[in-house]
Order: sequence, then structure tokens, then C-alpha cells
Amino acid sequence: MEQFEKLDKIKVDALDEILGKKFPVLDDGFVRVIDYMGSDESIVQAARVSYGKGTKKISEDRGLIRYLLRNRHTTPFEMCEIKLHVRVPMDTWRQWIRHRTANVNEYSTRYSLAIDSSQRTKIDEWRMQSKDNKQGSEGFFPIEIGSKLSEREEELQNFAREIYNERLNLGVAREQARKDLPLSTYTEAYWKIDLHNLLNFLALRMDNHAQFEIRSYANVIGNEIVSRWVPIAWQAFQDYRMNSMELSALDIEVLKLVIQNENNKAIEKAIELKMIKNDEGKIKLNREGKEFEEKISRLGLKAPWI
Amino acid sequence: MEQFEKLDKIKVDALDEILGKKFPVLDDGFVRVIDYMGSDESIVQAARVSYGKGTKKISEDRGLIRYLLRNRHTTPFEMCEIKLHVRVPMDTWRQWIRHRTANVNEYSTRYSLAIDSSQRTKIDEWRMQSKDNKQGSEGFFPIEIGSKLSEREEELQNFAREIYNERLNLGVAREQARKDLPLSTYTEAYWKIDLHNLLNFLALRMDNHAQFEIRSYANVIGNEIVSRWVPIAWQAFQDYRMNSMELSALDIEVLKLVIQNENNKAIEKAIELKMIKNDEGKIKLNREGKEFEEKISRLGLKAPWI
Amino acid sequence: MEQFEKLDKIKVDALDEILGKKFPVLDDGFVRVIDYMGSDESIVQAARVSYGKGTKKISEDRGLIRYLLRNRHTTPFEMCEIKLHVRVPMDTWRQWIRHRTANVNEYSTRYSLAIDSSQRTKIDEWRMQSKDNKQGSEGFFPIEIGSKLSEREEELQNFAREIYNERLNLGVAREQARKDLPLSTYTEAYWKIDLHNLLNFLALRMDNHAQFEIRSYANVIGNEIVSRWVPIAWQAFQDYRMNSMELSALDIEVLKLVIQNENNKAIEKAIELKMIKNDEGKIKLNREGKEFEEKISRLGLKAPWI
Amino acid sequence: MEQFEKLDKIKVDALDEILGKKFPVLDDGFVRVIDYMGSDESIVQAARVSYGKGTKKISEDRGLIRYLLRNRHTTPFEMCEIKLHVRVPMDTWRQWIRHRTANVNEYSTRYSLAIDSSQRTKIDEWRMQSKDNKQGSEGFFPIEIGSKLSEREEELQNFAREIYNERLNLGVAREQARKDLPLSTYTEAYWKIDLHNLLNFLALRMDNHAQFEIRSYANVIGNEIVSRWVPIAWQAFQDYRMNSMELSALDIEVLKLVIQNENNKAIEKAIELKMIKNDEGKIKLNREGKEFEEKISRLGLKAPWI
Repeated sequence: MEQFEKLDKIKVDALDEILGKKFPVLDDGFVRVIDYMGSDESIVQAARVSYGKGTKKISEDRGLIRYLLRNRHTTPFEMCEIKLHVRVPMDTWRQWIRHRTANVNEYSTRYSLAIDSSQRTKIDEWRMQSKDNKQGSEGFFPIEIGSKLSEREEELQNFAREIYNERLNLGVAREQARKDLPLSTYTEAYWKIDLHNLLNFLALRMDNHAQFEIRSYANVIGNEIVSRWVPIAWQAFQDYRMNSMELSALDIEVLKLVIQNENNKAIEKAIELKMIKNDEGKIKLNREGKEFEEKISRLGLKAPWI
Repeated sequence: MEQFEKLDKIKVDALDEILGKKFPVLDDGFVRVIDYMGSDESIVQAARVSYGKGTKKISEDRGLIRYLLRNRHTTPFEMCEIKLHVRVPMDTWRQWIRHRTANVNEYSTRYSLAIDSSQRTKIDEWRMQSKDNKQGSEGFFPIEIGSKLSEREEELQNFAREIYNERLNLGVAREQARKDLPLSTYTEAYWKIDLHNLLNFLALRMDNHAQFEIRSYANVIGNEIVSRWVPIAWQAFQDYRMNSMELSALDIEVLKLVIQNENNKAIEKAIELKMIKNDEGKIKLNREGKEFEEKISRLGLKAPWI
Repeated sequence: MEQFEKLDKIKVDALDEILGKKFPVLDDGFVRVIDYMGSDESIVQAARVSYGKGTKKISEDRGLIRYLLRNRHTTPFEMCEIKLHVRVPMDTWRQWIRHRTANVNEYSTRYSLAIDSSQRTKIDEWRMQSKDNKQGSEGFFPIEIGSKLSEREEELQNFAREIYNERLNLGVAREQARKDLPLSTYTEAYWKIDLHNLLNFLALRMDNHAQFEIRSYANVIGNEIVSRWVPIAWQAFQDYRMNSMELSALDIEVLKLVIQNENNKAIEKAIELKMIKNDEGKIKLNREGKEFEEKISRLGLKAPWI
Repeated sequence: MEQFEKLDKIKVDALDEILGKKFPVLDDGFVRVIDYMGSDESIVQAARVSYGKGTKKISEDRGLIRYLLRNRHTTPFEMCEIKLHVRVPMDTWRQWIRHRTANVNEYSTRYSLAIDSSQRTKIDEWRMQSKDNKQGSEGFFPIEIGSKLSEREEELQNFAREIYNERLNLGVAREQARKDLPLSTYTEAYWKIDLHNLLNFLALRMDNHAQFEIRSYANVIGNEIVSRWVPIAWQAFQDYRMNSMELSALDIEVLKLVIQNENNKAIEKAIELKMIKNDEGKIKLNREGKEFEEKISRLGLKAPWI
């Protein structure tokens, strides 16, 4: 074979060190890295294809990665790929799998016995329904109530397992025997995804509106795995995505007046734009008004109607 | 507005007649069409874009659709789209959702109360585990056993619902209260997919290896809906996909010898290709050997080792 | 057939009126709507599946659509689908087709003769290379130069067509004869996409960094077609996407100080965050510094270093 | 960090040896591997997730991979990923990029100068239009004609390059200057795809109906790269995909009669199924009839009407 400029497979030492390590999540779940392709360097390499060989470096690597992420130039991030082995309650997996851009091989309960483990809730982990947010929780139950809830949970899970075993012992087909297993039953899967789509997943699932369970997985994937794998991209993701803030055209109009100390005009504008309502002299906030308040508080400002 | 050749929205009368109609599936599920785009005619129209206006019709419409399907020219079939409203047990939905090429809006049990219905198994519907196929079922239990199984199923489903209600009454967050609902609980969704990907879904899920429950949905979608929507494509799908047969390079080699009545050579070849094994003078079939037998029986032939 | 609540196919009159109408783009291109599925109402309908029947309307339809778009709840927008017939120079099509989430049937120059039309540049349409932006243009050439350029363009396009015809007359295969056609040659395609992905396409291609040619198509699709099809979603898209502004974590830190009139501290912070550089007493802006200036000017503010 | 069963990154020595090596294609194109993830072993590993740890090996690895490919269990093949660097004429790239399931970073002629190379046709490489197949070629021109064609090709390519340079020298924006480059101009890209989708690409593009140019690339990718990377999957792909044969429901009906030596009945059946036509006593073949002839000739049989 003739001479050629041989490439070495790209490796990331900090990730190689934890290859196979199970990071525990919830009471009996985990996430571990099975394999990966690429690194921060691969993002740069892919971006530079666009600029051609003769072109001067348009900036240092770090600057380039940050530029790409800030401006949502997503294709270079797709050049990195990671494969995880996860163990997740089916209830959480139902949310997880809604992200369609990954490759998946899930444990089969048609072929094999269901995993003999269900997610248990500790007595101090029972969450109260949020009043404000119909799809959220808020605060925890006192452990007196929690211990009762956990006891009943155990009863149900045990009973469900009893029935499952009864069916199997009678010779019911596995694919049918499983039909009444609780959603809390653990499943396992290989889950492979590119970095761009993984960051999208993390942006949604590390968000504090995400349900606690899937957020726990997302936090581990982000903080323990992605941070080791592509540290520069990870920092950029914090700065330009997780901790960024979007101002709508409406926000901008009102904020401009607030900055100019034109509070009355700001209020009028907010009413006109339906962010707030003047309800017989009393200001009522719509969802957008509340979001506006939260946003400008990050700029050290107060809404003019406060 | 200047003059132009106005198009009419493509409509399919046979489908319009059943728009909104719930086709029942299982004990409490259904499928209904909400909306659709395109028809057999749209497939032809899209294919003809490729040939340009000046070109003679390369064949009648029917012939063209059949040609496209036979030769896996898939893009014209992607030009048709359908939107279904389905009600499905979560266990079945877990399989369904593995098809990533659809658009989905599912009923939220974070936001709303879980649907108060679980799939119940009638006393004559309990299936026995298949001996041959680890992920299949085979035959039904006698109703004496079935009635016991159905009774226990009811106990479990009632208990699970009791616990769910207990939690909600205490004020547990909906997103957490649902965690131990049985997989048999019904969910609903809008599911939108193009015809090419729908046919892929049906080819897999109408197959007799598919689990009974999802197969029941697939049969309704195929036989009741797609057959009305795109009757020509549907017939082509039967002829070239559902009832076609694939011969592997190995099958062809052995079959050729069988056709020539060279039975001994055929057996030797099958051994060489590892479709069968000569186990001390006794022929043992590998999976491929069995598949070969089934295939050639469709041609009116018997395997040479029978 | 038993009684059922029949649905009518969703229609949008304002769009039906222009079905088939060719909106001209560039010198010989066009866009026209062939078919569509869904409307503003379908977005609402899909979102409401999530909330269940028993739930109160969480807001008026308009408010709901705006809420969904503002918070990037994208799946309900995927429930709408549109099919366009476009005529585009191949050079532009090369960019267009990079959006992978659409269904496509393109005119085949293997099967048919290439379309006998190339995009011509008028004498006042020749653009100068931007100094600041390596991948942009800036300003126009005077028509004396432009007319020379257009003349040479015509020579080349004519010669290329001559060679193409020569080859065909000799009997060269169409698939090979086309190999040296200029990128300016028009092609046609059916292009089908859901509303969510179409809005992503428009956000990128109506942006003023997009190349003029594809931007011209995007503007027509957005302003002439989407605005008629889903007027409420279109307005929301303007307010929350096209005219919104993203502040990074870095922007927020500096902006906060600017609002507090802490100009010196703001400059220090900007240096620390590498948005600007203090080059021997002279402030030099990095790309991020420039972006920051543009952003806060929309709030009526000036950068502290100006 | 506590103890854990450390994994090693999966490596394939045979592929590592050629990492970076440019395999030449056409006159100035190439394909080279930049990076990859997974191996034959990864396919097995992913499939086994489905069967659970406790389950006996259902077969040897080789048998399992072959089983998966034969039965179109595609997800385990998605667990392998490869990243190529390719140099391709834009005309070929236009076909290539129609496969939407890959990640792509292409050389930008907005940002950089177009690659100074166009695909040249040698004097013995000019292909004649096929008579039978409107989108194919058949046979080569004699070199007397070929040399004339190549000469004219050179003239055109030189003229196009001259105009391109003229524009750049005048300061025309790169994004506009490129508009009349010939489709034969080379472009480069990073192209990343999973093994399942790569095999789909190869099945279509190594097929002898694929255009010569893209087939040349596909052959190199298949025979030089995939064969080294996943040798077991590659062999299975030959046996069960490239060299397999699909018999339609119609084919089966007629073939059955042919095997039974019922030639007259076979002809009647073929007429009934519209595979052939009896045109006043003379048999005329439709496309399906021709396909049938080709298929059964692989079984050593002749059509009954021959």
C-alpha cells in the first residue's frame, strides 16, 4: 500500500477513563458510556471543511466552537456521536423516546423476562401538585404522609409482580404477561445520538420545567459525561443556551421604555400588547407578563407595574 | 390577481365519508382519520415531475404506481400524508412509537388525569407462550384458566386505579401519581405520517410475527383506511410487498438444484451453506433451512431432505 | 354504517384561492402551492389532545398558538403540512436541499432533457464581495461593469447549452451530457414539509445573512403563502422568532452593568469575557462585542465603549 | 472513583490501517475514512441488549448478524457509525445528498474559492444513451468521437473557469461568482452515516441501474471500506441483499406453474396478471414480464413464452 498521511482515531482521555462506569440515577437506574466518536477537535475539523485548506484560521478553536454554538451552526456538532447504556423506569422512558433523532435498542420484554425492579419512591420524595403549573410539582409531603404513600406503592408493586409471575408460571406468553406491569418498571436500552441532538435533548430535559425523573438523567449525562467529552462545547452550551435569555419583539418594546424610565408608557404598551390587563385599576398579569417580569429581573430591573 | 390555472384541493370521497369515524380496536381502543393530503393521483403527479412535461406518459397511472412500488421508488409515496387519532394501551404504544418517522401529539398525564380505562383481557383471549419462538405466542388457554386470569387482572387494575386515586386525593403531583399505572392503561394521540412510512409500518406490524395487539391496529389502518384512501397503491402493496417473497443468494443456489431434481446436490449445497446440518446421518434444520422450506412450499416444492 | 360525528376536511379559504398560482421569483423561477393539510385550528386541536377533553380551555386559540410558539412546543406545528411546486436554479437548490426534513421529488435530468433555462443576472444585480463578511455580499456594481458581466454570463450560458445540445445530438446519454451544465440551470421539484420545519427553514433563509437568491424564495413562501395559510402562527413567528433577540449569559452580565450606568465595570467585564480587547488603550471588538452592540441598540442603548 | 468494569473503545485494526488513506475515484475524486464507531461486535452487543443478560446466546455472533440482516432487524446496525471525507463532482453530489439520513459538512463556495478542478471525461469514457432505459446509458463511443467530445468539454470547462476568475478579479461576491460553474466542478464534504443507512445507500448506488459516477464511489465505499470495517455484516449484505431476489405475489403464481411444466397455464396466468400481452397471437412483454424472465433465469428456468 502506497504512502499516505495516516490518521489516528480521535480519543478523549477524560472520557476513556469512565468508559463503562455506571453513574447511578434514581434508586436503581444508571447511565454509562459504551462508545463515542469525535471530540471538541472534530467539531472544529468539520467546520474548517467549509472554509477550505488555503484559508487562514478564522479564529482559535475555542472561539470557533463558541461562535458555531452561539450562531446555531449545528452541522459540525452532528459530527460527534455517543452511545449510552441506560436503565430507566418505563414512565421516564416514555418521555425520553419522544426524541426521535436517536438510535435505540431497547431490552425486549417479549423475548425476555421483564427486569425485576421498579422505581421506588422514598418517604421524603413525594411531591405535591403545583397550583400554578398544571403540569408541575411543588414541594414535598411530610414524611408521615410520605411513608404511608411509599407503603402503598410497595403493596401495589409487589402485587403487580405477583400477578406477572403467576401468569408466567401458568405459561402465559411473555408479551401478554407483561401487560399490567407498572410504568415504574425499569427497562434498559442502548441509546446513540449525535452531539447536536444531544444538546437539544439536554436543553429541554435539564430545564427546570422538565419532570424531576428525566431531569435527573439529563443532569448526569450533561454534567458527568458531556462535560468530560467536549469541555469547550459544553461551556459554550452553558453560556449561549442554558443561561441565555430570549426577548420577544414584545419584550423589547416594553423593556426599551422601562430602561428609559418611561414607566407609564411601558405599562400602556404592555396592556396594548396583552402582556398585562388593567382590570378596573388593578394590573393582572398574563403568562407573558409573568415571563417578562422574570426575564428583566435577570437584568436587575423591576416591572413598571410592581 | 392575474389569471392562473387554479388547482382544486385533492379529495378522496371514499375517505371523506369516514372522516371522524372511530374504528374500534381491542376492548376500548380506536383509530379514526382526522385529515389527509393526497391520493393515488398525487403519487402519479409527483412521479411525473421527474419526467418533465414534454415526455409521453410512460404508462397508465395504475401501471406507474405499481411500477414505483415494485421498484421501491419511495419518494412519490411520501407526497401523501394522513393524520390519525388513536386510542391505544400504553404497552402497545411503546412499540408503536418506535417508528420515528411520524409526527406525534400524545395525551399528557402530567397535565391531565390519566384516561380511566385499561385494556382488559377476555377469558378466551389468554395466549400461551410459543415453544419455537421466544418472542411469540401460540394457542389460547381454556376458559377455566382464562377466567381465573381475567379475574386476577381485574383485581390488579382496580387496585392500581385505587392507588392512583388515593394519591391524587392527597394532592400528589399528577406527574408522580401516575408512576405505577399498569402498561395496559389507555393513552390517546394524534399520529401523522406519510404514505411511504405508513406502508413500512404496516409491512412490519401486519406481519404475523407482530404482536397481536399492535397487529390489530395495523390491520384496521390498512384494511379500513389505506384501502379506501389509495386503493391502487394498496393493491400494489399487497402484490409486491405483503405477499412477495425474498430469496437470498443462498436460497437461489439450493432452489436451482431442487428445480433440476438434483436432490442430493441440493442437500450437499444446503449443508455447505449451513442451512442444514448432517447430524450423524440425520438432517437438522437451522433457522435458514426452515425458512427455505416455507418459501419453496409457496412454489409448490418440497425441500429435498423431506 | 352506524352513526358517528363526521368531520369535515379542514380548509383554508385564503389559501384555496391561490392553489396553483405561480408566484414568480428571480428571473424565471416560481413557487406555487399544490396541496396542504391543516390550519391554525389544527395546531390548537393537536395541542388540546394533550390536555384531554375534560380540561377547561387554557386560553383562547390565538393565545394558545402564541404560547406554543413562544415556548418552542413544536409538535403541534408538525400537524400541518404543505406541498409546494418550485422552480429554482440548481445553485440555490443545493442550499435548499440541505434541509433534510422535507419530502422531495425533483425533475430528473437523467430521464428528461434539462430545463432550457438558466438564471440570468440583470446588469444592475451584480453584487460586490463583502469586506467584513467572508460569506456575504455588499452593494452593487455600477451598470457599466454590470452590463459587461451580464454579457459574459450570456456567452457562457449559451456556450454551455450549445455543448449540451451537441452531446445530445450525437447520442450521448442524458445522464452524462448534463455534466457541464452551469449551476444556474433551473430545476423543478415538489417539496413537502410540515409547518414546524418550514418555520425553521424560513427563520434561517429569510434572515439577512442568507444568500439573496434563496432569501427571495423564502420571502415569497413566508409572506405570500404561510401568512395566508396560518395567519395566527405567522404573526407569532414574527413576534417570537424573526424579531426576537437572544441574550447570552455573557450579554446579560454586561448589559446589567450598562443599565446600572456602571460603564467602567461593564467595560472590564466585557474584557474579562473576551467580548472586547483592550489593545494598548484602544478598545477592539471581537465578533461577540459587535453582536452585543447591535443587540443593545435595539433596546435604545449604546455600548459603554462607544 | 470506585471500581468498575472498564470498557475499551472498540477498534477495528483493518480499518485503523487505512484511516486517512485517500481511495481515488473518477479522475480527481476520493473517499477516505476520518473516524468510525463500532464494529461487527457492536451489532451483536446491541442485539443482545434485547435478549437480556440471563438469556443463552441464541447463536454464534456470525449467525446472529446474518439473522438480523436477513430479517431486516435494522436497529443494531444503526449502532455503528462512520465518517468519510469525500471529493465528488457536484453533479454526483446532487444525487448523493438526496439520502437524508446522513450528517453533512460541505465545502463552502460562499466562504471560499471554488475548488479548481472539474471532472474530465477521457476519450474512451463517453457513453451512449440507452434505447431501452430512458434513464440509462449503454456502450461507449469510438474514441474518434470521444476525443472530439473531450476537446469540447475542455473548452467549456476552461471558459467557465475563465469567467469565474474574471468575476472574482472584478470583486464580484463569491456567492454570486460561482453561479455558472459547471456541475462537473468538484466539491468536498464530511459525510457521516450509520451502518444501516449506509447499507441502504450502497444497495441503491452499487446497483447497476445507478449512474456510473455515483456507483464508482459506492463501490469503493463498499468494497474497500465497509468490507474492512464490518466483514461479517458485509458478507451478509452480499448474500441477503445485493444478491437476493424478490418474487412478487404475481411472480410466484406464474413461477409455480412453470415449475409444474404447465406452460400454457403459465402463459394464461401471465396474461391475466398483465405481465405479458397476447397481441394477435404474438406475445409482448410488459416491464413486469421482462423482470420475470430475468428473475427465473437466475433459477435456471426459461419463461414459458420463449
